[in-house]
Amino acid sequence: MQYPNNIKKSYTKLEVSHSNRGMNLENAINLSNEYYLRVDRALIYKKPTPIGVVDVSYKNHKKVIEKAYFKEQSTLDYNGLYKGKYIEFDAKETLNKTSFPLSNIHEHQTVQIRNVIKHGGIVFLIIRMNNINYLLTGEDYIAYIDNETRKSISYNYIREKAHIIKEAYQPQLDYLKVVDEVYFKGE
Amino acid sequence: MQYPNNIKKSYTKLEVSHSNRGMNLENAINLSNEYYLRVDRALIYKKPTPIGVVDVSYKNHKKVIEKAYFKEQSTLDYNGLYKGKYIEFDAKETLNKTSFPLSNIHEHQTVQIRNVIKHGGIVFLIIRMNNINYLLTGEDYIAYIDNETRKSISYNYIREKAHIIKEAYQPQLDYLKVVDEVYFKGE
Repeated sequence: MQYPNNIKKSYTKLEVSHSNRGMNLENAINLSNEYYLRVDRALIYKKPTPIGVVDVSYKNHKKVIEKAYFKEQSTLDYNGLYKGKYIEFDAKETLNKTSFPLSNIHEHQTVQIRNVIKHGGIVFLIIRMNNINYLLTGEDYIAYIDNETRKSISYNYIREKAHIIKEAYQPQLDYLKVVDEVYFKGE
Repeated sequence: MQYPNNIKKSYTKLEVSHSNRGMNLENAINLSNEYYLRVDRALIYKKPTPIGVVDVSYKNHKKVIEKAYFKEQSTLDYNGLYKGKYIEFDAKETLNKTSFPLSNIHEHQTVQIRNVIKHGGIVFLIIRMNNINYLLTGEDYIAYIDNETRKSISYNYIREKAHIIKEAYQPQLDYLKVVDEVYFKGE
């Protein structure tokens, strides 16, 4: 398998599996975002995980973190700019085959989804389930939780409402193609 | 001095100085963003500083960072959503009175400013200089560096091109008022 010279080193991971299928969802999205940036299609970044620093030291005038803990993100993990629009989303994986447990989505993330919709941004979830990647719009997610008392989203609902993101060589996960179809129809 | 009960604890900092003037620019922006969020005006967050984790341990099944270092942000520090638009900016302070040293702005930040303009977002710098807060649009910043060979922006250019952000009680730094005037004229 040949890779062009300008492909970054991280792509060599692919050579091990000879397939993207085994790739962790977050990695696939990160590589897709790097690709989008490289070809100047969109500016989308994963937010760093916030940390609480407990202790620091200094080495050669540089701050070294000696103790810290991970904090929860108050927003979704990814955000950025595409075709002049604000985009925010999160990636979720489940091994469950018949339903997506809502415990995967924190309360503050649901608040954030409602907020982004209210302020006119594009917001969605990328859900990997049964080895398929789905884009579920924030609107369809909110419609479900506002009308259901179940603690999970049935796979049927996801199959009916969500949009399949096909995997490919480059980008691994061309979710902006689905964003085009769903949010930029006819543009 | 009386504060309403719903003001968050961090506001008590103000009681020490009885003024916002002495407040660090970043704090003033963070508190303004909390205010905007509370009154449902905009969703704007400071990105956490990315870290490189060297060593972790586990305590009660929770990950504790035992050694790490701060990395550079690949974007500007703040981004978010306002009136359906993507916004990104950074905050810079200088004690210099006659010019703003361009060494304060890293090369990758200049690249990011060009990119946000190209993709149709709102991008600017908030510069505190001579105790005045200015909003300099990304466009005016790029116009300057593309036409000047100086290693700093003269204070005259900032006074001529940038927009003054007035300080107040709440929000401390109402930069969205300036954003309204500059980017949403007549809306």
